Amino acid sequence: MTQTAAHTERRHSADHLVRRLADSARLRTGAGSVPDWLAERRRSGTFEVRRIPFAELRQWSFAPGSGNLVHDSGRFFSIEGLRVRRDGAADWVQPIIHQPETGILGILAKEIDGVLHFLMQAKMEPGNIGLFQLGPTVQATRSNYTKVHRGQGTRYLEHFIGQRRGRVLTDALQSEQGDSFLRKRNRNMVVETTEDVEEHPDHRWLTLGQINELLTVDNLVNMDARTVLSCLPLPFADGPDPSAARTTAPTDWEVLSWLTELKTRHERTMTRIPLSQVDGLRRSDDEIGPADGRRASVVAASVVAGNREVTSWTQPLLAARRQGLAALVVRRTEGGVEVLVQGLTQPGTFDTVELAPTVQCVTDGYTGLDDPPPFLDHVLGAPPERVRYTALLSEEGGRFHRRDNHYLVVEADDTFSRKLPPSHRWMPLHQLKRFIALGSHVDVEARTLVACLQSLPPEQGWA
Amino acid sequence: MTQTAAHTERRHSADHLVRRLADSARLRTGAGSVPDWLAERRRSGTFEVRRIPFAELRQWSFAPGSGNLVHDSGRFFSIEGLRVRRDGAADWVQPIIHQPETGILGILAKEIDGVLHFLMQAKMEPGNIGLFQLGPTVQATRSNYTKVHRGQGTRYLEHFIGQRRGRVLTDALQSEQGDSFLRKRNRNMVVETTEDVEEHPDHRWLTLGQINELLTVDNLVNMDARTVLSCLPLPFADGPDPSAARTTAPTDWEVLSWLTELKTRHERTMTRIPLSQVDGLRRSDDEIGPADGRRASVVAASVVAGNREVTSWTQPLLAARRQGLAALVVRRTEGGVEVLVQGLTQPGTFDTVELAPTVQCVTDGYTGLDDPPPFLDHVLGAPPERVRYTALLSEEGGRFHRRDNHYLVVEADDTFSRKLPPSHRWMPLHQLKRFIALGSHVDVEARTLVACLQSLPPEQGWA
Repeated sequence: MTQTAAHTERRHSADHLVRRLADSARLRTGAGSVPDWLAERRRSGTFEVRRIPFAELRQWSFAPGSGNLVHDSGRFFSIEGLRVRRDGAADWVQPIIHQPETGILGILAKEIDGVLHFLMQAKMEPGNIGLFQLGPTVQATRSNYTKVHRGQGTRYLEHFIGQRRGRVLTDALQSEQGDSFLRKRNRNMVVETTEDVEEHPDHRWLTLGQINELLTVDNLVNMDARTVLSCLPLPFADGPDPSAARTTAPTDWEVLSWLTELKTRHERTMTRIPLSQVDGLRRSDDEIGPADGRRASVVAASVVAGNREVTSWTQPLLAARRQGLAALVVRRTEGGVEVLVQGLTQPGTFDTVELAPTVQCVTDGYTGLDDPPPFLDHVLGAPPERVRYTALLSEEGGRFHRRDNHYLVVEADDTFSRKLPPSHRWMPLHQLKRFIALGSHVDVEARTLVACLQSLPPEQGWA
Repeated sequence: MTQTAAHTERRHSADHLVRRLADSARLRTGAGSVPDWLAERRRSGTFEVRRIPFAELRQWSFAPGSGNLVHDSGRFFSIEGLRVRRDGAADWVQPIIHQPETGILGILAKEIDGVLHFLMQAKMEPGNIGLFQLGPTVQATRSNYTKVHRGQGTRYLEHFIGQRRGRVLTDALQSEQGDSFLRKRNRNMVVETTEDVEEHPDHRWLTLGQINELLTVDNLVNMDARTVLSCLPLPFADGPDPSAARTTAPTDWEVLSWLTELKTRHERTMTRIPLSQVDGLRRSDDEIGPADGRRASVVAASVVAGNREVTSWTQPLLAARRQGLAALVVRRTEGGVEVLVQGLTQPGTFDTVELAPTVQCVTDGYTGLDDPPPFLDHVLGAPPERVRYTALLSEEGGRFHRRDNHYLVVEADDTFSRKLPPSHRWMPLHQLKRFIALGSHVDVEARTLVACLQSLPPEQGWA
């Protein structure tokens, strides 16, 4: 094959994927049965979660000395303290989840009757609102996937690792909540298979359009699914670059330079400290949390789950005190859709600063803030005709106890301030998606909002 | 201006930069006076460095309890211990430099008589072989550049930050030696000015060709200059993408997926520990180092420096016991130059794995290794006609005591193994440069080798 032919084929292949995703996104009907299916899965067995005092935790305990909440095996995760030190600012201490393992969040794709389908899972997590939400094909911790070779694997995991892996459509390490996790990332993958795949009762093939329909429902598509979906498709380098035709849009290098500037400005040192050394916590038999009552506290839960084999366990969870808000302001320009992002530092952010939504008030909530962030009033006061997307969506129910946030996409109005603070920048949606595909550049709240924006019916022209 | 016109202009501007750099690279004559100039700068004042016992350190001391070597001010850097924990492997402990500040390494560019010149500095560092080496315009720590507004700045720094900054040609955070530094990065910048710039006796305008000539001289162009040079130019997104025409070359996404796989595989937890808890160190009055005598040890130095105003200080340095080797295997393909890189984990690597040279033996040296790395024999045994570049180059003399490594670029021969270990991959040079421009993806040894490869006379066709 000549070079040009191969290159052309590769471009066609990338364009082809974009077209196939678009075809799959147009098929939106039939999603209505999914909530019933989730309810049916819940009824099919015994699933119970209740809050318990810390004293009733099994295999979890407060380590002598440090007071860290740890598992007897030394695995899973631990809840520790974190000290954040920044030039010219007072030290900041808080509880943090330390989970040094990178898990796999994977969605399996397959062409069925000529249309791409995605294998989604009815996934139970103890902290979930509604217990079952729609998750990716696989949510595997490192412990899950390293023991696969001993024959005890997570279902469908073989499609994501090792010899049987299909065609990788997206694959990057993505961060999770920087207010709660210390540098945590998961590997986000979409893999297409051409093999026969058995559909287990907990799994169902859905089109992209069906999943998108479900994204409009409160607390139904889980965080793990949303972050993986936000990574599709991948126009960078392989395909045409729509942003290249735009006059006002920054180049990727300009964005990188801006991020570099912000990273330098927000430089800080994070030190893990014993949880017992975190000041200002109120500690009771069943809750440890900031005395100001604003941020998340640590609680414990007992879980019973299963249909044929019933298992039970106990575990700590983080309980948010207030509902948060993540809002993205968008606009249409001659060159396409642009989104207003900010460069945001959070205590556990992997690389100092990540691209975040226009407004992100998920740690302290968004009401009664002493120092409200820019654009908060703009997004909260947007008239209904400018609200493109609104829903309550849950954060990872394996770590958070009933934590949901209000996700909002608002179209900028004509009076929208043209002078931006240095923390904010307009960016073509396509460019933001390139940065998502790079991994570790866009925070989980922004990735969720990109998934939401993409979920809008194609005829609205937002994605 | 129409969108297309602006886009065309932007592409022209990027192409134009590449052409201007090529023009500057062709002017290689006149570099011969630079070693004399460095020697003259050294003779112009008093410059003395000598090893001292730790007890003679001023303002530096071993902290009670931790035994960490720290500065009284709590600033600059400290020498501490690091524990690295990996699944299924024994814990690893070692001394490490903790320097949470990001400095600026900046080269100022300016067109003189129609040709781009770069303002290079005769830079004294206590650990330098020869004391003075050729550095970038500016090597500023965060302490340097945050006090600029109080009027005590580093010379020429105003061109890199704040209102007077010129046109940014490259700007990214780049890692430093992962065997010695914990997650250290510096901001690498090239900025072009059109202002009049006064040439200080310690600074001199050189063409890219002159700097490239000097790169063939042992221990002359310092590490800071090399890493900044490796970032030029920036064809990504703005300009044409020569690698896109190649058949066998991986796409950027394939490389990212491969890196993600390696990062997941090499996952580890790093914990800062007291230096006193690092086992296996031999501690004497003037040296602390591994008992096996292979890796670097901590020493102390007294420095007197200055011409008009003479200053003196003491500081710790890391002394390497053995000379290291960093070698890049290259080949010509129909599509252009390709380089053989590996994904390498080092204890202090910012993000688990970085792209590294084909062979990197800088920590333990390269002779008498129990477990020699792949391709070591290939590069050491290469006949002279296949050696494209060879020189001894120094690492950062502000932290390392006379540490130089052998840098080698070798052309692959016909017998070169086509089956690569999973750690290694052929990559177009252009693609590697895109990953350099992203920041934090390519290690400092590989960046140096890219600068060396680019320094070869243009008629050889390697860059």
